[in-house]
Amino acid sequence: MSFNSFGHLFRFTTWGESHGPALGAVVDGCPPGLALAEEDIQPWLDKRRPGTSRFTTQRQEPDRVRILSGTFEGRTTGTPISLMIDNVDQRSKDYSEVAVAYRPGHADYAYDAKYGFRDYRGGGRSSARETAARVAAGAVARAVIPEVRIRAYLVEMGGDAIDPAAFDDAAIDANPFFCPDPGAAERWIDILDEARKAGSSLGAVVECVATGVPAGWGAPVYAKLDAELASACMSINAVKGVEIGDGFAAARLRGEGNADAMRPGADGRPLFLANHAGGIAGGIATGQPIVLRVALKPTSSILTPVETIDRTGNAAEIRTKGRHDPCVGIRAAPVVEAMMALVLADQKLMHRGQCG
Amino acid sequence: MSFNSFGHLFRFTTWGESHGPALGAVVDGCPPGLALAEEDIQPWLDKRRPGTSRFTTQRQEPDRVRILSGTFEGRTTGTPISLMIDNVDQRSKDYSEVAVAYRPGHADYAYDAKYGFRDYRGGGRSSARETAARVAAGAVARAVIPEVRIRAYLVEMGGDAIDPAAFDDAAIDANPFFCPDPGAAERWIDILDEARKAGSSLGAVVECVATGVPAGWGAPVYAKLDAELASACMSINAVKGVEIGDGFAAARLRGEGNADAMRPGADGRPLFLANHAGGIAGGIATGQPIVLRVALKPTSSILTPVETIDRTGNAAEIRTKGRHDPCVGIRAAPVVEAMMALVLADQKLMHRGQCG
Amino acid sequence: MSFNSFGHLFRFTTWGESHGPALGAVVDGCPPGLALAEEDIQPWLDKRRPGTSRFTTQRQEPDRVRILSGTFEGRTTGTPISLMIDNVDQRSKDYSEVAVAYRPGHADYAYDAKYGFRDYRGGGRSSARETAARVAAGAVARAVIPEVRIRAYLVEMGGDAIDPAAFDDAAIDANPFFCPDPGAAERWIDILDEARKAGSSLGAVVECVATGVPAGWGAPVYAKLDAELASACMSINAVKGVEIGDGFAAARLRGEGNADAMRPGADGRPLFLANHAGGIAGGIATGQPIVLRVALKPTSSILTPVETIDRTGNAAEIRTKGRHDPCVGIRAAPVVEAMMALVLADQKLMHRGQCG
Amino acid sequence: MSFNSFGHLFRFTTWGESHGPALGAVVDGCPPGLALAEEDIQPWLDKRRPGTSRFTTQRQEPDRVRILSGTFEGRTTGTPISLMIDNVDQRSKDYSEVAVAYRPGHADYAYDAKYGFRDYRGGGRSSARETAARVAAGAVARAVIPEVRIRAYLVEMGGDAIDPAAFDDAAIDANPFFCPDPGAAERWIDILDEARKAGSSLGAVVECVATGVPAGWGAPVYAKLDAELASACMSINAVKGVEIGDGFAAARLRGEGNADAMRPGADGRPLFLANHAGGIAGGIATGQPIVLRVALKPTSSILTPVETIDRTGNAAEIRTKGRHDPCVGIRAAPVVEAMMALVLADQKLMHRGQCG
Repeated sequence: MSFNSFGHLFRFTTWGESHGPALGAVVDGCPPGLALAEEDIQPWLDKRRPGTSRFTTQRQEPDRVRILSGTFEGRTTGTPISLMIDNVDQRSKDYSEVAVAYRPGHADYAYDAKYGFRDYRGGGRSSARETAARVAAGAVARAVIPEVRIRAYLVEMGGDAIDPAAFDDAAIDANPFFCPDPGAAERWIDILDEARKAGSSLGAVVECVATGVPAGWGAPVYAKLDAELASACMSINAVKGVEIGDGFAAARLRGEGNADAMRPGADGRPLFLANHAGGIAGGIATGQPIVLRVALKPTSSILTPVETIDRTGNAAEIRTKGRHDPCVGIRAAPVVEAMMALVLADQKLMHRGQCG
Repeated sequence: MSFNSFGHLFRFTTWGESHGPALGAVVDGCPPGLALAEEDIQPWLDKRRPGTSRFTTQRQEPDRVRILSGTFEGRTTGTPISLMIDNVDQRSKDYSEVAVAYRPGHADYAYDAKYGFRDYRGGGRSSARETAARVAAGAVARAVIPEVRIRAYLVEMGGDAIDPAAFDDAAIDANPFFCPDPGAAERWIDILDEARKAGSSLGAVVECVATGVPAGWGAPVYAKLDAELASACMSINAVKGVEIGDGFAAARLRGEGNADAMRPGADGRPLFLANHAGGIAGGIATGQPIVLRVALKPTSSILTPVETIDRTGNAAEIRTKGRHDPCVGIRAAPVVEAMMALVLADQKLMHRGQCG
Repeated sequence: MSFNSFGHLFRFTTWGESHGPALGAVVDGCPPGLALAEEDIQPWLDKRRPGTSRFTTQRQEPDRVRILSGTFEGRTTGTPISLMIDNVDQRSKDYSEVAVAYRPGHADYAYDAKYGFRDYRGGGRSSARETAARVAAGAVARAVIPEVRIRAYLVEMGGDAIDPAAFDDAAIDANPFFCPDPGAAERWIDILDEARKAGSSLGAVVECVATGVPAGWGAPVYAKLDAELASACMSINAVKGVEIGDGFAAARLRGEGNADAMRPGADGRPLFLANHAGGIAGGIATGQPIVLRVALKPTSSILTPVETIDRTGNAAEIRTKGRHDPCVGIRAAPVVEAMMALVLADQKLMHRGQCG
Repeated sequence: MSFNSFGHLFRFTTWGESHGPALGAVVDGCPPGLALAEEDIQPWLDKRRPGTSRFTTQRQEPDRVRILSGTFEGRTTGTPISLMIDNVDQRSKDYSEVAVAYRPGHADYAYDAKYGFRDYRGGGRSSARETAARVAAGAVARAVIPEVRIRAYLVEMGGDAIDPAAFDDAAIDANPFFCPDPGAAERWIDILDEARKAGSSLGAVVECVATGVPAGWGAPVYAKLDAELASACMSINAVKGVEIGDGFAAARLRGEGNADAMRPGADGRPLFLANHAGGIAGGIATGQPIVLRVALKPTSSILTPVETIDRTGNAAEIRTKGRHDPCVGIRAAPVVEAMMALVLADQKLMHRGQCG
């Protein structure tokens, strides 16, 4: 069923709200004997951590992770790994406005429609703070797939795209945008400063590439590797689109332009002459890099007043004060990486289970 | 786990290969007491059926569905509904070429990498014939959600988009392309004839809209309604991208441009002034129409020879003869509708289960 | 969710009613490359087949299985294996009585309470004919675990137990009761003839032993091997109890009497001095034989009239005419074997998936 | 998959080891709007708490539960409920012996066989401390099914059974054994004192009855209510057998003796004249009380030395010092109640989901 779980054989469950005492993840099905300590998880959380530049929310959360179970003497035991992160900076602000009026673009109205009421403090369960738990779980997943390297970065912000020819892997961690194009990163400073000062927000496109995935991981039909990745990424807050390989651009190609021709390569494996497919055919990895892109809408929390209604159905107007990311797409990059890792770890174990 | 199952409470499993004796679906968890006969399912299969125009494959499959279990005196009993469709037009052609060489863009190489060998006749399990079983299951799902109307159509073929201003619901079934813009449908005749005669193929974009979905269906986090839809659609053959509402275009909007403002509406429900979100917020339906689009790559089976390798790793060249859809996107429209229905039926039951 | 599915990585779904056109199973997650033909499945169905002696129902069902998908050139492909068995001997008797009155001990009343109505012909979905599909699926499972030998037999019928000292494996298939004690088998002829002629029925206890299960299969907590076996067996029609190893007798032992002491054995593996645990500790196989017993109630269909009510809530009396097994426990033995095989195949794949 | 999860729509996951910092449960799928506070959970934990009499382990654990998520203003929100219990009394004893030698009857050898190593402190994940998390989750389940009353008690200890005629509900909580027969409770004091002083241990049989379960909960075939209960109970530490209604005794009845005859009752519902079936027919509740019994082996931790082997395969001898329950069956009673509640809550939601 899994309202709050993801995965099959390698499976995790997250819990926690924006303004509760803590949040966490329980990772089940992890292979035994893997080296795992809090220090292996913390760096990934630090990449997603808020308050590291003026371009992300100023909420100050150390996001220190604790391992409460599932390891012994520094190694995973095969039993569930409970990860917990305390919430420390819940500002005791006045929530009376958001408690009664629905913020457009947020889940406020939908939650009330479903559950009858909601924890309105900081968005409750619908807050993107939940993604901290994914990143922690994703760090465990990485230990399961040491053969894979995963890299996510922004290829577009506010409609301004990078120049693929300027792609520089080393640049990604050298600017506050996970931007692989140093020139674009420069432009984005101004673009985002303008939006932030105007009380507005911007959308973004994140690309994620996984190299080292062996041909054969994945499965046909409903557990297709691309279907799992689409579900994983669409479940991230603010994501409105997912594409694999050429994605929507593939719909504009002709058959011969879309074919990934093959030649004999090393070890009898094919040398692919292109990767329009993004490393997946028939739901199964081909051994090429897995390539996906996700579209993130602009942050819904903006200072501009917007027409809305309140809980009694009367007209209201709302502007979202408080500390928000002017572009949620930035901090989504480590989350997309985590979801890629979590899907691949699961697929590795399932493939091994079925095919030995 | 569910390599070949989809859904949680309303759940279906499909089976069958392109050139086996039959294919089918087992639908589990269907509410009891719903009127259901083969005549309720057949019309949806007929919409997807091949060989109805020169723009689809000339394989002649009547696709007659039989209900083998789960109904009694014309009503569903609550027990599994077994649906079977015989394969009748499996041409006894020579498969020696495809048996040894991998067709680029197809799952041939990936299946061999995963399973060690494959049923190469017509693509085996990776054939889009599997989608007939989905359409049959989808017809059962429609009986579960009579309050919902679902409509899928092509908004783009070979890069040529419809004019939204020319949208005419009545036109969709009046041309062989499920095209809602009569002018575009005229153009597509020529576009697709050209590609077909050149032995090439075209991609397409299918849009699907579900109206009547009550606010509240769906769930936060990993069972998000949009995540389920993304998984459902990405699992369809040839799909390379999925977007909800404005999708990738939302990444180019500013926060105020993306906000779906609300005013008091009928029955205390909101009147939304826009639907950038595509009817889903925080993973839960808002009561607005659910809107999604999927990108389909051009058919991989083309007459143009392509470089490839054979099973022994040696260089080869392959051109795919046989009867193929010059644009798989056309027959995908009924399949997308089916997956929408299947997801919504499941979400309706889950919502009722949890929230009463 | 899985109302009609069982298993996790190796998973099957059954469908069909007693008086529908057919019944079947879809087996998903089967490893590829295993030799599998209809001839590998049929012998197991023949063991369960009705009408083979006067001690089972006289319904004549050939129970011929057909493989509709999932194999190619005699080997499993890793895709779903669809198995179908036609129903051929549905006697067109008068069901007007059972349609309106509830047979005590049967599911009639419970089905109506749940679903609002029911397929009353031969018990519909609640008929033990469903177990034919399990036996077919179980034959596939056997191909997954060639290292395991599974044997089920009756240790008690109508309260008359076998003499363990007289246990003779070769006797099991030499009498119509799967009875390993030739003396008991002789007695059971008279006991069952008496009950059958009196229009009554008898219960039984089936024991099942699996040898060759490697230490390590299984899992702690909720996927415990014994928990999976308990669920698998309790799901069989007429089963009212399941025990592992010494079972209920263990509750009467002292700690030192229940301990399975160990000595150094071959290959560094332990030589166990007893098997009170039935081969499972902490939910995980120890390498000893897996031993379980299930209790089956007497067939509920009896000629003796019983007080009951009808669908309108009025008093009625019912006696169940027709062709019934005087002791359902007999034909349950092959079903218990099948469920043991299905659980073990699943556990093997899950163990391989998690632990490599 | 769910190595450490249980349930479908109402689903919980537990984590934690005997000697880790804490243990807990995440409850997912809980309906919104239910009153729930820590004070609603604590009393059930107190019933299971160790150290309350000389007949249970002297380990002193307050077992204070904290709710970390999923409630707001005293009500459930429909999002995951994270429950945590700190471990406070982990005695820093010397584990060098149990680290190297396998305790017969315990999971030591099986864990090493499966995972390659294990957390040997207090049994790690295989410790019955895990059941504290079940009891906490079970308290949440009780809030979902206010119409149901659940009662578990011991009917047998060390082979000494209660007198059913002396059954007194009020007695259950008036002695340290959850024994409903005051006379038996007197006898058990001596019986258990003797075993405890001898360094031995005793087994027990726990019976559990749920009244108020409406006819219709449950499902046929693999999600049978009895199959779910069997799995739930067999997953409890030390359980070796489960029976429903008459259980194994039903195997000794004739058909007419086992029939639960019906007469017209109140509201058109049947008045059952017996309950051999234990309230379940065809996997579905009949409206009668659900009755089950579980057999628990004697505690494996005994002072009597037992032959065993060590991790290197050499002969060894082990006696289990430390603080242990002389009869684990006693503290199992609240755990069986919890599992009953958890299964029923899940079945209620699933029934509502499918059947409305």
